[in-house]
Amino acid sequence: MLKFIDGGVCAAQGFRAAGVHAGVKTHAEWKKDVALIVSDVDCAAAAVFTKNVVKAAPIHVDLRHLADGKARAVIANSGNANACAPQGEENAERMCAAAAGTLGCKPEDVLVSSTGVIGQRINVEAIEAAVPALCAALERSAKASDAAGHAIMTTDTTKKEVAVETTVGGRTVRMGGVAKGSGMIHPNMGTMLCFLTTDCAISPEMIRTALLETVNVSFNRISVDGDTSTNDTCLVLANGLAGNETIAARGPDYDAFLEALRALCTELARKMASDGEGARHLITCTVRGAGSEQSAETIAKSVVSSTLTKAAIFGADANWGRVLCAMGYSGEEFDPDKVSVRFASAAGEIQVCADGRGLDFDEDLAKKILTEHDVEINIAMGEGEASCTCWGCDITYDYIKINGDYRT
Amino acid sequence: MLKFIDGGVCAAQGFRAAGVHAGVKTHAEWKKDVALIVSDVDCAAAAVFTKNVVKAAPIHVDLRHLADGKARAVIANSGNANACAPQGEENAERMCAAAAGTLGCKPEDVLVSSTGVIGQRINVEAIEAAVPALCAALERSAKASDAAGHAIMTTDTTKKEVAVETTVGGRTVRMGGVAKGSGMIHPNMGTMLCFLTTDCAISPEMIRTALLETVNVSFNRISVDGDTSTNDTCLVLANGLAGNETIAARGPDYDAFLEALRALCTELARKMASDGEGARHLITCTVRGAGSEQSAETIAKSVVSSTLTKAAIFGADANWGRVLCAMGYSGEEFDPDKVSVRFASAAGEIQVCADGRGLDFDEDLAKKILTEHDVEINIAMGEGEASCTCWGCDITYDYIKINGDYRT
Repeated sequence: MLKFIDGGVCAAQGFRAAGVHAGVKTHAEWKKDVALIVSDVDCAAAAVFTKNVVKAAPIHVDLRHLADGKARAVIANSGNANACAPQGEENAERMCAAAAGTLGCKPEDVLVSSTGVIGQRINVEAIEAAVPALCAALERSAKASDAAGHAIMTTDTTKKEVAVETTVGGRTVRMGGVAKGSGMIHPNMGTMLCFLTTDCAISPEMIRTALLETVNVSFNRISVDGDTSTNDTCLVLANGLAGNETIAARGPDYDAFLEALRALCTELARKMASDGEGARHLITCTVRGAGSEQSAETIAKSVVSSTLTKAAIFGADANWGRVLCAMGYSGEEFDPDKVSVRFASAAGEIQVCADGRGLDFDEDLAKKILTEHDVEINIAMGEGEASCTCWGCDITYDYIKINGDYRT
Repeated sequence: MLKFIDGGVCAAQGFRAAGVHAGVKTHAEWKKDVALIVSDVDCAAAAVFTKNVVKAAPIHVDLRHLADGKARAVIANSGNANACAPQGEENAERMCAAAAGTLGCKPEDVLVSSTGVIGQRINVEAIEAAVPALCAALERSAKASDAAGHAIMTTDTTKKEVAVETTVGGRTVRMGGVAKGSGMIHPNMGTMLCFLTTDCAISPEMIRTALLETVNVSFNRISVDGDTSTNDTCLVLANGLAGNETIAARGPDYDAFLEALRALCTELARKMASDGEGARHLITCTVRGAGSEQSAETIAKSVVSSTLTKAAIFGADANWGRVLCAMGYSGEEFDPDKVSVRFASAAGEIQVCADGRGLDFDEDLAKKILTEHDVEINIAMGEGEASCTCWGCDITYDYIKINGDYRT
């Protein structure tokens, strides 16, 4: 039975975490800015990275370190993206070497991630100096996961942490994750970092397969501002300490693992969308009755990515014309005259469009529905049987404020 | 010799215009909301429409009326888009019939455009009632073009009107246009209406060819918010009164005509980008040294469409990392290590990135440069010889305000 539990990245057996202040950004003296997540034993490891042509240095390093499908630890910092920066790969390697030196493993068994400002040399000396304290702080506790989660936050207003428990091959298996992502979250990996840990025994090949399948239906279905970043990384470490028979192929065990991983990542994705920079609303758009799941996904993504729809939700304005408009420029073919649209939230549900035409509706009720934090846009296409849900957020004055002067 | 002149849509011989208040939106009693542009004689006519699957009713009507490549007049309203609205096509036909009845031409020789709120029935009775006054107000004057230009404005803060004069086949040829577009302007025709008139003699086939070629390098190179609309229309009427030999094929005459049309439309496009909803800055992004013009265009569009870059320009923040990031997710392949970036304006020019790496630069000068209204982002790719310029604007608090409650 799948259930949500506490503990974040420390929920699974054999994982410890820590987060400390190293001083990557000199003028944020209170903020934890370096995180470390370590397994007691070697892990099968896999990662998905940004599709941006401009990739940050840590990604190039991780690609090399993941060549053998194994890892022991992840070191990550906020405050500097180490992208388009002088000595980028050299400094990313130094971060791995520093962690490996204190942990007693090979530098190639350490993965590295960075997030923050692009184009400035990372203060790797500050990170190296902080590694002993970081390793000393390692422990397996909810508090330690919390510290790691906070250390990777940038403009995030809340820490994102989830853990689940399930049964795989008769054994209790746990998995958990911490993530950051607030601006630049978009389908195909916007600036987000996500570190997942599990004690499931699974081969490097199957963990890679599971991660890809899961990212496509979770993180790739959220959008904050349509920008995708240089640093996006979602990685998973599986140390096998749950004692289940190693998953080495598809089958019931893989399915059980995948179900849990999907639940974990979908919840993390929703938390990211909900904490979009400056956001006041989580927008959940579900497209039903589409000709294919791919078509439903493209249309739902187009709606949650539409700046005009986002602005309308910010204003609690039931401007469904913008929903139809965003559907129409998604690139998918469909018959507008079959479309119906409903807005829903904890305050109720209201149909605003049927057969592609506006309905008279109660504007006061619509306003009430759209004033809730979590709002749904439910679309029926009348084309087929497929459906898909994507998540986004509204665009607000605070988004502009946050991004109008990000570097200072 | 190509030169800019006054007169807008009335600059060319034989064109009259008018704009009056009909009451399409009841609570804007002062605002002109219906425009009429009429040629004294039949015109070769062509139009380019939105690629949105959801097309407003007037577009379906125009497609029928343009089947013979001819037209005499255009009637247009603001305040209601007549899209996804009850009796849409019927009401669009009624607008044409009303104008034709008073002008004494066939309804099929009248084109129709609408812009405004989606999904509500258009008050066609108010428009019909206003047609006699509209026809009575027709005249060939700068004032009449101005009235027509104002009548199609929605959230625009300035009227967009340009006219040029050139020589084709030894004759003086004039052309002019009025346009609206403020939000939802995007490559591939965001919500914009643009009505062009010329006294050049040109065949329906060649005017269509010229319009397509011109739109691709002018209106399709601007972006305001990435949304494309249900109503976008750019149409041209050519009445032949300049007396040149009719252009019926490519050649020097066609080239002279195309050069003038491109100058006209590029200037209108820049005015639209500059008046993007809430915008404080016109952003001109020029990509040089690209592998192909198509590649340069895709990259430049990606930069001017990036919400994060737009927010940085709003904040006068020289955050060139976002420029590289937007280039990187454009879908084009290139070597980031060859890229250099400069910001420029009337206040000076500053290089911020060379060979894909950040340079130390004078932050005060950068701030000064980016505080100007017109700012340039100049990118050198180091890949080839091709270049392209695209235009956009910053995103501001006012954009959110305007679009948070557009319907009321």
